[in-house]
Amino acid sequence: MKISILLNNILKKWSDEYHDGTRFGLKGKILHEEKSDFQKITICETDRYGKALLLNDCWMTAEYQEKQYHECLVHPALSSAEEIERILIIGGGDGGSARECLKYKEVKKVDLIEIDQKVIELSKIFLPKIGLGAWNDKRLNVEIENGINWVRNTKDNCYDVVIIDGSDPEGPAEGLFNKEFFRDCRRILKNNGVFAAQSESPESFHEIHIQTIKILREIFDYADPLYGNVPIYPSGWWSWTFAAVEKPRYKQPKLNRVQRITEECHIWSPSWQEGAFKAIPAFLNRELNQ
Amino acid sequence: MKISILLNNILKKWSDEYHDGTRFGLKGKILHEEKSDFQKITICETDRYGKALLLNDCWMTAEYQEKQYHECLVHPALSSAEEIERILIIGGGDGGSARECLKYKEVKKVDLIEIDQKVIELSKIFLPKIGLGAWNDKRLNVEIENGINWVRNTKDNCYDVVIIDGSDPEGPAEGLFNKEFFRDCRRILKNNGVFAAQSESPESFHEIHIQTIKILREIFDYADPLYGNVPIYPSGWWSWTFAAVEKPRYKQPKLNRVQRITEECHIWSPSWQEGAFKAIPAFLNRELNQ
Repeated sequence: MKISILLNNILKKWSDEYHDGTRFGLKGKILHEEKSDFQKITICETDRYGKALLLNDCWMTAEYQEKQYHECLVHPALSSAEEIERILIIGGGDGGSARECLKYKEVKKVDLIEIDQKVIELSKIFLPKIGLGAWNDKRLNVEIENGINWVRNTKDNCYDVVIIDGSDPEGPAEGLFNKEFFRDCRRILKNNGVFAAQSESPESFHEIHIQTIKILREIFDYADPLYGNVPIYPSGWWSWTFAAVEKPRYKQPKLNRVQRITEECHIWSPSWQEGAFKAIPAFLNRELNQ
Repeated sequence: MKISILLNNILKKWSDEYHDGTRFGLKGKILHEEKSDFQKITICETDRYGKALLLNDCWMTAEYQEKQYHECLVHPALSSAEEIERILIIGGGDGGSARECLKYKEVKKVDLIEIDQKVIELSKIFLPKIGLGAWNDKRLNVEIENGINWVRNTKDNCYDVVIIDGSDPEGPAEGLFNKEFFRDCRRILKNNGVFAAQSESPESFHEIHIQTIKILREIFDYADPLYGNVPIYPSGWWSWTFAAVEKPRYKQPKLNRVQRITEECHIWSPSWQEGAFKAIPAFLNRELNQ
């Protein structure tokens, strides 16, 4: 027994994500590592946050920290779109966003478009707590495909909600932050739908963050960021941006739709959302309104 | 020239703060290190955030990141107390909280009670950008003294605002998180004043965070947390808690008092504050109302 504990400790090491003069590390044991066609994929069992996924040595998600990302991306959109029968998720290969979407009984079909089959395979094996029942839910349709091609080839007014759940704008997710892609997203979104995207850290990816919101404001009638905390991401300070046509409908959750969902949430609630849309730090507010 | 750059790079190293299976590091050059009577003090010139202060190997403040801490601690209190002539700061040896307080022309005297003279001395030498003009402002009275003794020996109804700007509840700041100390704080605060304290990370110091708010709710009539981001602290997710008697007056900034101050702020604004008090994550809301 004592020898196995000793061995276990010897196998543990610090895995650090480096970013612009900073590093953030978790102590743990590497369970699996491989190179897919798109990226290096690492699964690490961390002491602090349970099993975690790294892509190209960047922390992507972890069992005991994923809610503060997935809830903030999904619920402001799903709670407020006029209808939520057809949902599109670009990325999201860990299954967390799909799981949150499928909590709504009104959802009839979720198309999950992930470029890297290996991310899904390894998430199912090592991180089943994140996808949970989503992988077996008949409403989920998984396609292994480039998200940019998928939106380009989708016909107009097709989805009630479009969710962009990609990684940082380097490597396979690079094209998920440009005007052409966002224009296609608006085109395939129904007029009373809601668009949602992770929009990086206002501190560690400041320029791309501001840029993303400004582009979305050009393309949609309304776009607004929400700020929150994902401690495993660079700076720990994260954002999600929501967009809609005609009115900022993402600011008005349909309270009867979300009653049961609210009880299960770790971060999100209608009042959290209301506050978070107001709590824009002064310097960001100034830059966004320039 | 090239040799000096090379030498500079050789002198740089990662300084990491370790916390519960996580670590956060900044790359930089150690400019000074010494042991005071109370703690190890390190000054590091970091690539990312400029000159920074560590106490017992924990990041305390940095030139290009201190505003997101000091503004959130000071302005919700100074903007809302009925009067703001006499201010008490416990801790705050880097001078940042004093600087923010002294922006208000209504402030007549700030007592800054720092236990460790060395922190003030080294901050004046290495971090003058944080204290700025505060150190030369005649309204600032610095006392080198244990904050617990200071509040114990102060007469009733003495201060308009009491600010607790201490480090984590280990070492010299341990006594700044208990009931007896907070009772004294209430006693020396005027009835229409506002109490403010840094209240740790809801994630990395979860228990002490919840405990602090609950104790303050027992002692004052009202106490509420604000959540924000200080990327150099454990988890990057931070909190400040405000308390008052009779009514939660910290929720009502006096807009005419803060007009000029708002323009200079990096994070804080009356609308940021309004949103931040509402944006309580669901799990924290549940725990605080149990």
